[in-house]
Amino acid sequence: MSDHRVLVLHGPNLNLLGNREKEIYGHLTLDEINKLLQQEAKRLGFVLDCFQSNNEGDLIDYIHAAPKKYSGIIINPAAFTHYSIALRDALAAVKLPVVEVHLTNIYAREEFRRYSVIASVVQGQISGFGPLSYILGLRALFDIVERNVRD
Amino acid sequence: MSDHRVLVLHGPNLNLLGNREKEIYGHLTLDEINKLLQQEAKRLGFVLDCFQSNNEGDLIDYIHAAPKKYSGIIINPAAFTHYSIALRDALAAVKLPVVEVHLTNIYAREEFRRYSVIASVVQGQISGFGPLSYILGLRALFDIVERNVRD
Amino acid sequence: MSDHRVLVLHGPNLNLLGNREKEIYGHLTLDEINKLLQQEAKRLGFVLDCFQSNNEGDLIDYIHAAPKKYSGIIINPAAFTHYSIALRDALAAVKLPVVEVHLTNIYAREEFRRYSVIASVVQGQISGFGPLSYILGLRALFDIVERNVRD
Amino acid sequence: MSDHRVLVLHGPNLNLLGNREKEIYGHLTLDEINKLLQQEAKRLGFVLDCFQSNNEGDLIDYIHAAPKKYSGIIINPAAFTHYSIALRDALAAVKLPVVEVHLTNIYAREEFRRYSVIASVVQGQISGFGPLSYILGLRALFDIVERNVRD
Amino acid sequence: MSDHRVLVLHGPNLNLLGNREKEIYGHLTLDEINKLLQQEAKRLGFVLDCFQSNNEGDLIDYIHAAPKKYSGIIINPAAFTHYSIALRDALAAVKLPVVEVHLTNIYAREEFRRYSVIASVVQGQISGFGPLSYILGLRALFDIVERNVRD
Amino acid sequence: MSDHRVLVLHGPNLNLLGNREKEIYGHLTLDEINKLLQQEAKRLGFVLDCFQSNNEGDLIDYIHAAPKKYSGIIINPAAFTHYSIALRDALAAVKLPVVEVHLTNIYAREEFRRYSVIASVVQGQISGFGPLSYILGLRALFDIVERNVRD
Amino acid sequence: MSDHRVLVLHGPNLNLLGNREKEIYGHLTLDEINKLLQQEAKRLGFVLDCFQSNNEGDLIDYIHAAPKKYSGIIINPAAFTHYSIALRDALAAVKLPVVEVHLTNIYAREEFRRYSVIASVVQGQISGFGPLSYILGLRALFDIVERNVRD
Amino acid sequence: MSDHRVLVLHGPNLNLLGNREKEIYGHLTLDEINKLLQQEAKRLGFVLDCFQSNNEGDLIDYIHAAPKKYSGIIINPAAFTHYSIALRDALAAVKLPVVEVHLTNIYAREEFRRYSVIASVVQGQISGFGPLSYILGLRALFDIVERNVRD
Amino acid sequence: MSDHRVLVLHGPNLNLLGNREKEIYGHLTLDEINKLLQQEAKRLGFVLDCFQSNNEGDLIDYIHAAPKKYSGIIINPAAFTHYSIALRDALAAVKLPVVEVHLTNIYAREEFRRYSVIASVVQGQISGFGPLSYILGLRALFDIVERNVRD
Amino acid sequence: MSDHRVLVLHGPNLNLLGNREKEIYGHLTLDEINKLLQQEAKRLGFVLDCFQSNNEGDLIDYIHAAPKKYSGIIINPAAFTHYSIALRDALAAVKLPVVEVHLTNIYAREEFRRYSVIASVVQGQISGFGPLSYILGLRALFDIVERNVRD
Amino acid sequence: MSDHRVLVLHGPNLNLLGNREKEIYGHLTLDEINKLLQQEAKRLGFVLDCFQSNNEGDLIDYIHAAPKKYSGIIINPAAFTHYSIALRDALAAVKLPVVEVHLTNIYAREEFRRYSVIASVVQGQISGFGPLSYILGLRALFDIVERNVRD
Amino acid sequence: MSDHRVLVLHGPNLNLLGNREKEIYGHLTLDEINKLLQQEAKRLGFVLDCFQSNNEGDLIDYIHAAPKKYSGIIINPAAFTHYSIALRDALAAVKLPVVEVHLTNIYAREEFRRYSVIASVVQGQISGFGPLSYILGLRALFDIVERNVRD
Repeated sequence: MSDHRVLVLHGPNLNLLGNREKEIYGHLTLDEINKLLQQEAKRLGFVLDCFQSNNEGDLIDYIHAAPKKYSGIIINPAAFTHYSIALRDALAAVKLPVVEVHLTNIYAREEFRRYSVIASVVQGQISGFGPLSYILGLRALFDIVERNVRD
Repeated sequence: MSDHRVLVLHGPNLNLLGNREKEIYGHLTLDEINKLLQQEAKRLGFVLDCFQSNNEGDLIDYIHAAPKKYSGIIINPAAFTHYSIALRDALAAVKLPVVEVHLTNIYAREEFRRYSVIASVVQGQISGFGPLSYILGLRALFDIVERNVRD
Repeated sequence: MSDHRVLVLHGPNLNLLGNREKEIYGHLTLDEINKLLQQEAKRLGFVLDCFQSNNEGDLIDYIHAAPKKYSGIIINPAAFTHYSIALRDALAAVKLPVVEVHLTNIYAREEFRRYSVIASVVQGQISGFGPLSYILGLRALFDIVERNVRD
Repeated sequence: MSDHRVLVLHGPNLNLLGNREKEIYGHLTLDEINKLLQQEAKRLGFVLDCFQSNNEGDLIDYIHAAPKKYSGIIINPAAFTHYSIALRDALAAVKLPVVEVHLTNIYAREEFRRYSVIASVVQGQISGFGPLSYILGLRALFDIVERNVRD
Repeated sequence: MSDHRVLVLHGPNLNLLGNREKEIYGHLTLDEINKLLQQEAKRLGFVLDCFQSNNEGDLIDYIHAAPKKYSGIIINPAAFTHYSIALRDALAAVKLPVVEVHLTNIYAREEFRRYSVIASVVQGQISGFGPLSYILGLRALFDIVERNVRD
Repeated sequence: MSDHRVLVLHGPNLNLLGNREKEIYGHLTLDEINKLLQQEAKRLGFVLDCFQSNNEGDLIDYIHAAPKKYSGIIINPAAFTHYSIALRDALAAVKLPVVEVHLTNIYAREEFRRYSVIASVVQGQISGFGPLSYILGLRALFDIVERNVRD
Repeated sequence: MSDHRVLVLHGPNLNLLGNREKEIYGHLTLDEINKLLQQEAKRLGFVLDCFQSNNEGDLIDYIHAAPKKYSGIIINPAAFTHYSIALRDALAAVKLPVVEVHLTNIYAREEFRRYSVIASVVQGQISGFGPLSYILGLRALFDIVERNVRD
Repeated sequence: MSDHRVLVLHGPNLNLLGNREKEIYGHLTLDEINKLLQQEAKRLGFVLDCFQSNNEGDLIDYIHAAPKKYSGIIINPAAFTHYSIALRDALAAVKLPVVEVHLTNIYAREEFRRYSVIASVVQGQISGFGPLSYILGLRALFDIVERNVRD
Repeated sequence: MSDHRVLVLHGPNLNLLGNREKEIYGHLTLDEINKLLQQEAKRLGFVLDCFQSNNEGDLIDYIHAAPKKYSGIIINPAAFTHYSIALRDALAAVKLPVVEVHLTNIYAREEFRRYSVIASVVQGQISGFGPLSYILGLRALFDIVERNVRD
Repeated sequence: MSDHRVLVLHGPNLNLLGNREKEIYGHLTLDEINKLLQQEAKRLGFVLDCFQSNNEGDLIDYIHAAPKKYSGIIINPAAFTHYSIALRDALAAVKLPVVEVHLTNIYAREEFRRYSVIASVVQGQISGFGPLSYILGLRALFDIVERNVRD
Repeated sequence: MSDHRVLVLHGPNLNLLGNREKEIYGHLTLDEINKLLQQEAKRLGFVLDCFQSNNEGDLIDYIHAAPKKYSGIIINPAAFTHYSIALRDALAAVKLPVVEVHLTNIYAREEFRRYSVIASVVQGQISGFGPLSYILGLRALFDIVERNVRD
Repeated sequence: MSDHRVLVLHGPNLNLLGNREKEIYGHLTLDEINKLLQQEAKRLGFVLDCFQSNNEGDLIDYIHAAPKKYSGIIINPAAFTHYSIALRDALAAVKLPVVEVHLTNIYAREEFRRYSVIASVVQGQISGFGPLSYILGLRALFDIVERNVRD
């Protein structure tokens, strides 16, 4: 069993989860999602750090610091998905395996949400399954990281 | 007479008002505009808090905190008007009445200023009247808030 | 107190106000809105003439005649907002202060309503506050006209 | 047998039918088409009023007046099909069943004729069958109106 | 009375009619629509063959075989409306009179449904009247075929 | 010397010529331009009727009536240049020689003025020479009409 | 433990997996992927049927038949992702939970692969994890189906 | 002299060649073209198999089977040229030399025929020479195959 | 009477006039057009030099040399109209009055001919009157030059 | 055996063939390609003249002179393919049969190379076969010319 | 020798220079680049302050403070180049001479990097020379500042 | 000290420098700029040849001849920047280091000047500094060439 460390990044407005627009984003709070992720991480033998920010620069700082501590990143870039090239460049630079997740199916919402500037620099993308998107992302990252180790 | 509390948010570069590009944005400083707003608010029976930031994340934090303290928001998103989907999502999430104001007529300036990513989640938009845009926004918000109370 | 005269122009289909599509355009009839405007005008010391037409040419004729009698124009161009370059050219020609108003937030409706061919030749635009949009427009115009007088 | 009353509206330039561009629009005059429509209406138990105008505003006025007298509208918006949002809004407002007809197949002509700003607010559209388009439109309207009555 | 034979082609997913998405496509099954068409055809003195397929190639084969047996085609291309250039070329090649029908008003639905690659090679198009679209199409085709015979 | 009769049509807002926006449209009034045209027409042996309207429908009516009285049309469609497909269809229908003129160089102004929906159905277009554009148009029309006579 | 039955649909060219373009699509054959899926399904208590076709019509037929036998669908539409509106309509019609999966990260490949006509009618989408995309899709579907059962 | 085997694929509607739209596609039937190709193949020392289908899936199946039997493919994708990404992916996967041919000059026809989704994965493209396009394609393929053999 | 000197520039392929594509460009040769222009120039008191080239650089050289010898330029840029920004910059630089002429109505031909990169830097444009376009251009230039002299 | 004369035109930068960018354009020099063409021409009974220029105007001059001496033209317009409307107009004017050839598959390269302004006025186009493209073009031209002779 | 003070601003992710993606951005760290800049500044008689941030708001704050301390700004906006209108407005407001620099040639990379929202408000732009871009920018700024002093 | 030889190419209309449009392009003549460049080249130990042409073909010829004599090219493509793909291909072919320079900031001018077809094949681009752009370009080239020598 591995003892990898993984960084989970939550983008802007995700601190409101479970309190607002529940009909779109679901009933779980961010804390509850983080707990679910911790449970799953424990099951997989991962250590997990979670961080949320409404500030693009702070997320970038965390990404820059990641290679020293983490084997991979799970990121829900939220609104930044659609325009933050700075975030994209940060993810491209650190060269860790990255999984992009979205609670909602961004391809079934407003036109401007159909384009991700992030997607072309990540390993893969999972969208539309609510909190399960994160869990699946964690499993995907586990698989990628373990395979890297084996290779 | 109501005793509602309203949040006025000024976006990036508005701290320079009255000091730079006066031919475009007018001669009043932000402080002077805030004073005018306070006078009008007093007249309407509102309490007013004003906040300016050049930082998208800080504005979002203020918006998130608003429902607990304020009955509505007046926002001049300035340059963020045209690309900050994060700001838009924040405003959409808090579900307070929001009035978008612009000092200049954004539809009579450069092409890229003609599109507001914010506009589709606010109650209404007022642009082109200089500091008066804010005053009118305050009156509009007063009307909306009072009506909500009555209903 | 000034004794300015102001022209209020209502574009096509606004004669139906209060009778149809009330869920979009509200419950007041055009006459009721005009009365509210007359009250506010009286308060501000304005004399007000209101005119509605479904005919582009008639609206243009009124605009042409305006400089001789009026200090400013409030116009809700309704559907003409989106394609009547003739109306735009008329407003640009007369060089009176013009305020464009919309009952609904045109930026939160169908894609084709997001573009105003009128906006780039008016002083400012107010949209989304129902009949209040007109009232605010009147106040804005009052301010512009008074200032012109003072200067 | 019903005794419904139906309004047939002919848009700009249709008064020239049968006299000009017969290779495109056919040999029947507008009067002859109206007569065919009257015959068919009689057969269906409809009373029919026909009106042609080259003036957008006049057509809108007729549409506004329609709900008091008519159970439905058949409209050939001709050139207005492609840009008259005012006409569209009028049709949307009155909420009568509306059938849009075209003599020619507008999708087999110039690029700019392929888009109808009217189509999204009507019940259905019939194009390309010459005067028969009107007759079919009448039958469609008959069906809709009768069904409304039964329901 | 003529004894023409007409081919009715139903495109992909229309076999589900009456069973699924009834709020969009109505309550009649495809069999029931075909029966209605047979009745109307009998009334008009037509013989009718109906064919449905979810397979583009099969529909093309039927179109190719049509000139030997049929005087005209009524086609509801369903989803193929929007991209099957192969279907379009087949219809253009056989040079029979073709009437394109749609149950729903395709111009009042999703953006991608507003463009028909088929429309520019057919005689005319009828959309938005439910099963009546087919009936009207049959009448239109009857008219075209009879006229061809007379000429 | 011929005794042809020519119709000169002036589109919306041209009645303001010489009174407003002289820096763009020049100092001559419409009456003065019409007088210049009458002089030139007399010189060429033409009889001239001039008509201005801000109303699309009225201009169309004049065009429809033209073939009975006139050998050709000179039209400055002004703002209608850019969207009035109804005007275009009217001009296309009457099949008289038509010359489109513009006082200003429409290709050196705002983007939306660069496209004429009229141009593809006229004989030729002259823009940018102020009142001279009309005079040149008259000479061009003279040439076309005379040549038609000779052929 | 549930005993749900799930349909796995593989779109065009996926029968070549493991034999061609391994540098893009990986080394496993379709049979091997299906075996992995069967193992995972067994673990989750699912019964699984897998079907591959290069024929749009056949895939649609399978989708139509699915509601009678399956609780959900996992589909890798392959090239059909980008244009098969017929497939989309089939998936939308059957109203089963559907998970769209892609072996590769379609947002990091050619421009034309960035748009899925399927995505807006599915529950969620997983792309970029190779065969793992299917496995994750199965887990997601398990979660959705189980939850439906519980609700 | 080589004894290579080559596959000639004819896309949808090409079975109608020589029978319909001869003014566009010429007077030879598909059989006659195949015979010409057989003659030329014999001359070059090729064995030739020809296959036509109106069904995208069948063409893909033939392409998949090709590597085992053929040294190269000549394909006239007909209407599939413009949208069948599935066909494109099949050709890209098999990695045989492929020559794309068109009877007509697709760049001198309708706008939508100017774009080939196939072209970027083939060796080369020949269009506009009628049946000669095939013959030239055969010679091109001969050259490519022979060169491969020599290298 | 003035004794101004004017440069007439003919762009690429105009040397073929009267010999090829007469149905589009008319029956007069370039020499014959130049003679007509010389006659008209003489009448107006102008001296005229004509120059044709198929070479962009040569035309630019002539334009550069023009201010020393000429009071104005008449240019038919032919195909260069649509892409030669170098020609445009040359005309913009020399600041002589320039009249752009076209034999055909470029707005009634292929889409790519509807845009002139030249038009925004010339005084005015005349298109569609055959050789008369040049004659009218000469008269326009005469008027501009004379007026400049008077001012 | 015919004794036709054919003109081969090589566009800009093709004089560098075999010396630069061989990985894209191959190892043969232009002289070597011309020799191959001469051999093939001799075999077909053609006389061949080859001309290369980096100068648009020179190529146009050659095209203009062609009808007096040549039965057809083979042209590789190279970079001019994508913007030289002057070249296009020259080819359209001379009305000789023209074959457009490209060494590389222009549809598999940069986006801007996918559009040929030339293609719509030539007989046919051959791209992607290296020097063989020219040889095939020669054979195609031979066929066209011979057929013209026979007809 | 002047003693001007210059501000060098480094945008997001530039703190990673020399550590990541060296094949794109080169081997020097940001500190090493800053040292090179300090040397060059000393040589030119400039005093230099360097600041890097991943935070848009912080960069704006620095720009706002700049006029009091600096004679000019050198900015490498990195990812913000392509969307930060807030940064643009800040630079436009302070009215110092600004030079935009890029390590890489942004016009030879991904499509989205080809557009700079910053470029239209700066004095000039230098891209593609690695760290030398900064040095050249410094020299350019020196020249501008010195010239301002002299004027 | 090196003794490299560098080619400076000036595109169309640059021979007018200092004589026309000085408010845009500055007061120095091309000769004066060349002298400044010679001085700087001498300082750097370069030998410099300067060439200006209004003729695309001549510039291409110079570029082709460059590799034999020069170590690098500085080019101001002027208007050719925006459309001369032939120039681009020439620069790409010779594989010398190339620096693209512009006197003005092309990103702050007309829309059509914002796109350079040249930029993606050069080492770097410098725009907006007047004649200094050339000087900086020379220094950049010096650096590149020297580095090449050292490596």
